[in-house]
Amino acid sequence: MERSSVSPLYAAIDLGSNSFHMWIVREVAGSVKTLAKIKRKVRLAAGLNHDNILSDEAMQRGWECLSLFAERLQDIPAERIRIVGTAALRTAENADTFLAKAKTILGHPVDIIPGEEEARIIYQGVAHTSGGSDKRLVVDIGGASTEVIIGSAFDASALTSLKIGCVTWLERYFKDRALSAANFDAAITAAKAAIDPILAQYKQLGWDTCVGASGTVQALQEIMLAQGMDEVITLQKLKRMQRQAMQYERLEDLDIEGLTLERALVFPSGLSILIALFESLNIETMTLAGGALREGMVYEMMSQMRHHDVRERTLNSVQRRFQLDAIHADNVANTAMTLLTSCQDEWQLEQQAPCLLHASSTLHEIGASIEFKKSGEHAAYLVNHIDLPGFTRAQKHLIAELLRRHREALTSLPEQHALSASSATRILRLLRLAVILCHRRDHQHQPIVTLTAKDNNLTLSLPNAWLVSNPLTNAELQQEANRQTDLGWPLHIIAMDDEA
Amino acid sequence: MERSSVSPLYAAIDLGSNSFHMWIVREVAGSVKTLAKIKRKVRLAAGLNHDNILSDEAMQRGWECLSLFAERLQDIPAERIRIVGTAALRTAENADTFLAKAKTILGHPVDIIPGEEEARIIYQGVAHTSGGSDKRLVVDIGGASTEVIIGSAFDASALTSLKIGCVTWLERYFKDRALSAANFDAAITAAKAAIDPILAQYKQLGWDTCVGASGTVQALQEIMLAQGMDEVITLQKLKRMQRQAMQYERLEDLDIEGLTLERALVFPSGLSILIALFESLNIETMTLAGGALREGMVYEMMSQMRHHDVRERTLNSVQRRFQLDAIHADNVANTAMTLLTSCQDEWQLEQQAPCLLHASSTLHEIGASIEFKKSGEHAAYLVNHIDLPGFTRAQKHLIAELLRRHREALTSLPEQHALSASSATRILRLLRLAVILCHRRDHQHQPIVTLTAKDNNLTLSLPNAWLVSNPLTNAELQQEANRQTDLGWPLHIIAMDDEA
Repeated sequence: MERSSVSPLYAAIDLGSNSFHMWIVREVAGSVKTLAKIKRKVRLAAGLNHDNILSDEAMQRGWECLSLFAERLQDIPAERIRIVGTAALRTAENADTFLAKAKTILGHPVDIIPGEEEARIIYQGVAHTSGGSDKRLVVDIGGASTEVIIGSAFDASALTSLKIGCVTWLERYFKDRALSAANFDAAITAAKAAIDPILAQYKQLGWDTCVGASGTVQALQEIMLAQGMDEVITLQKLKRMQRQAMQYERLEDLDIEGLTLERALVFPSGLSILIALFESLNIETMTLAGGALREGMVYEMMSQMRHHDVRERTLNSVQRRFQLDAIHADNVANTAMTLLTSCQDEWQLEQQAPCLLHASSTLHEIGASIEFKKSGEHAAYLVNHIDLPGFTRAQKHLIAELLRRHREALTSLPEQHALSASSATRILRLLRLAVILCHRRDHQHQPIVTLTAKDNNLTLSLPNAWLVSNPLTNAELQQEANRQTDLGWPLHIIAMDDEA
Repeated sequence: MERSSVSPLYAAIDLGSNSFHMWIVREVAGSVKTLAKIKRKVRLAAGLNHDNILSDEAMQRGWECLSLFAERLQDIPAERIRIVGTAALRTAENADTFLAKAKTILGHPVDIIPGEEEARIIYQGVAHTSGGSDKRLVVDIGGASTEVIIGSAFDASALTSLKIGCVTWLERYFKDRALSAANFDAAITAAKAAIDPILAQYKQLGWDTCVGASGTVQALQEIMLAQGMDEVITLQKLKRMQRQAMQYERLEDLDIEGLTLERALVFPSGLSILIALFESLNIETMTLAGGALREGMVYEMMSQMRHHDVRERTLNSVQRRFQLDAIHADNVANTAMTLLTSCQDEWQLEQQAPCLLHASSTLHEIGASIEFKKSGEHAAYLVNHIDLPGFTRAQKHLIAELLRRHREALTSLPEQHALSASSATRILRLLRLAVILCHRRDHQHQPIVTLTAKDNNLTLSLPNAWLVSNPLTNAELQQEANRQTDLGWPLHIIAMDDEA
């Protein structure tokens, strides 16, 4: 029997100001698959003195970490390895000393990249993992620098690296570890001063959506989710988080629900920088980016991954990875979109609704790749856990809940934050109808249907002759009408006279 | 981007004495994937009168069901459709009347198969879904017949269809619906009388293992699992179940934990037949088969699925379905088996232990096909839910629990029924070591190791030079030694002088 073919390995190593990371991946069916992730908290930036000289101890910590990474690099060809150093190494006057030995250990050179190049790669990491064609503002708060970028699709129109970071701000404004208003004020004010020079340019360029990369934004999102909020970061929530933090006297006392120990130390400094960015740039909302520097490094090496539509690339890749029947999936998706078009005038669903209905239809059989029985449950498990570049966390969650209910028993959707409750219910109803109408897996034998919507009432009309010659689908449609109607969403199936 | 290719559909329809079933499948990467399963309780046998004439009502129920099936058959070519009728149709004097209209409705002929042919196909269904090369006794209790087969690999050496079934025995011995000792005795005695003619032949042929197909055996297993027993059916457990049933006066009062309403009606009659089989044939233990008639029909149509080793076919197929790195998996499996060989003299593990270690190694990266983070959890989810022909339920459960712990944090295994607790723990320890030793994914760079076992103490010796030049693996081995030792399973890592 044919054995699985194996695609080549890639390694991206990022010598950050706080941690060193190695990420080993391969491309599997158009997706980036992680094979290893190794991280060591080297705290290089903490080893810089006032003259920007890296201490011997800090360099030693770095070299020890690199000797671990080196073991794995031996098996990967040079052209599929990228190693970059960022702010701490940019700043260190004696970086050459560090680099010389690093190259010997790794067998590969370390590329200390300028702040603009870092911003450019971060933008590529975001562009390859985010959906939509909106103009984006991207913010990545690192240990010793913060990158701010504006771009759309794969092209950045403004790239800036600011010398503010959660480690340097911790050392400068929270050195006494006090969670005082004075410390926060000083940290925010100083960050605003650093942002000030780019304000005019960025405000003039403008943007439609804002995404944040890095640990600070991820920590915030985890706290918000742990506290039952939705995933969208707003200034109001940041301020609330600052108040929560200020209830504790000192950094080591911090005990905020959802905040991990690992993140706690740089949480107040990172939060201060984020508040400064929101206030200076008048950011309304921010969501978490699906990728940043390391993703940018990897996607740039895998040139075949560049695709004009990230969501489409993702859906195609998932279909291939789970060996879904793409022709049937397209058929269900087309049917669902046709049904949606019939209702759109009456329903006026949000802008994202068609894309989410399309994605759910495209993946509707994913659960059956585990087991036919309970395939809805399995689909929800998979969609909740696989990486879906181009879809936000809230969107993934809604797709999972739609697929959990795509066939068999119908229950109300739980609370979700991707669409209004009524829109989500409406696309669920259409998804289920599309799945039933395509049961024969052959679009040539699909009926010509007419769907009309009046508020929540749906009427689906089909030719009588078709219903008679397709008694199984007819029975399923009748059962579906009962199921939707029982939940308070009336659905009528009408057999049209063939004369009509 | 390349779209998923689609393999052809197959349909197997089984017009049973109690229910009609349609199963639509396709082959995906060497596995049978279910696309639809439709079942209607037609109760054909209940429509037979004393002169073996099928009533008009029963035929009508059958034809209505077939017209539902027919809708789906239209899209599948004749050579990939198999439709069989069993005991009730074999018995019906007016079967021709039923068949003529059935053919018109379906567009395909129904093949009423003799009892021996039914037994032969059932055996194929078992052979294609069971592991091991033992000589097997296979028992399938249907509505109006019970097939008893002896065979090994894909060849049956005895094929019998007995005229006893859970529907006919219900009508004959539990017609008054009383769960009395008298009814049970009569049912068991009558079943024994029917089995009697084949006793000499079957006892002479003999067998190593016994598997049961059909709803009765599945219902028993569900009850046993719901009541916290293991999955192995014994006469003692059957008798216990009979006593539980007899605590209720009448069939409609039955309320046994784990017994579904759907199965309850034919539970006492099926149980009686099974007790008769156990007592007459001196069956010691029975496990549930992974397939029977419908699986046999489908596997026979998909001739490419015949493989001398069902477990190997399954593992290869899962590797392909989840795009695992088969070369790396083989490397981990070989390493694990080498480690096991070093310990086998001291440990004397059960016969199934090597096969389960091999299977776990072969699938160890399956969870990472969902997500690298928590890949152990995902692996357990997948293995617990995918079909693994050749592995029993208890074996699947152990493989899932091994993979849940194959890397990162180590915890004790939960209760399981595939191996003794000490054997299961021991193969887990070897699996984890093999995964670490193969981290470089290149067997050319693996160290020459020596593993010695003394009771639960393991000592792993590696060349010092290798440890020095592979500091990441060295660190992982040291951490692993701590993890195993902390759980009371001492592991020592020894660096051997290169002179030695």
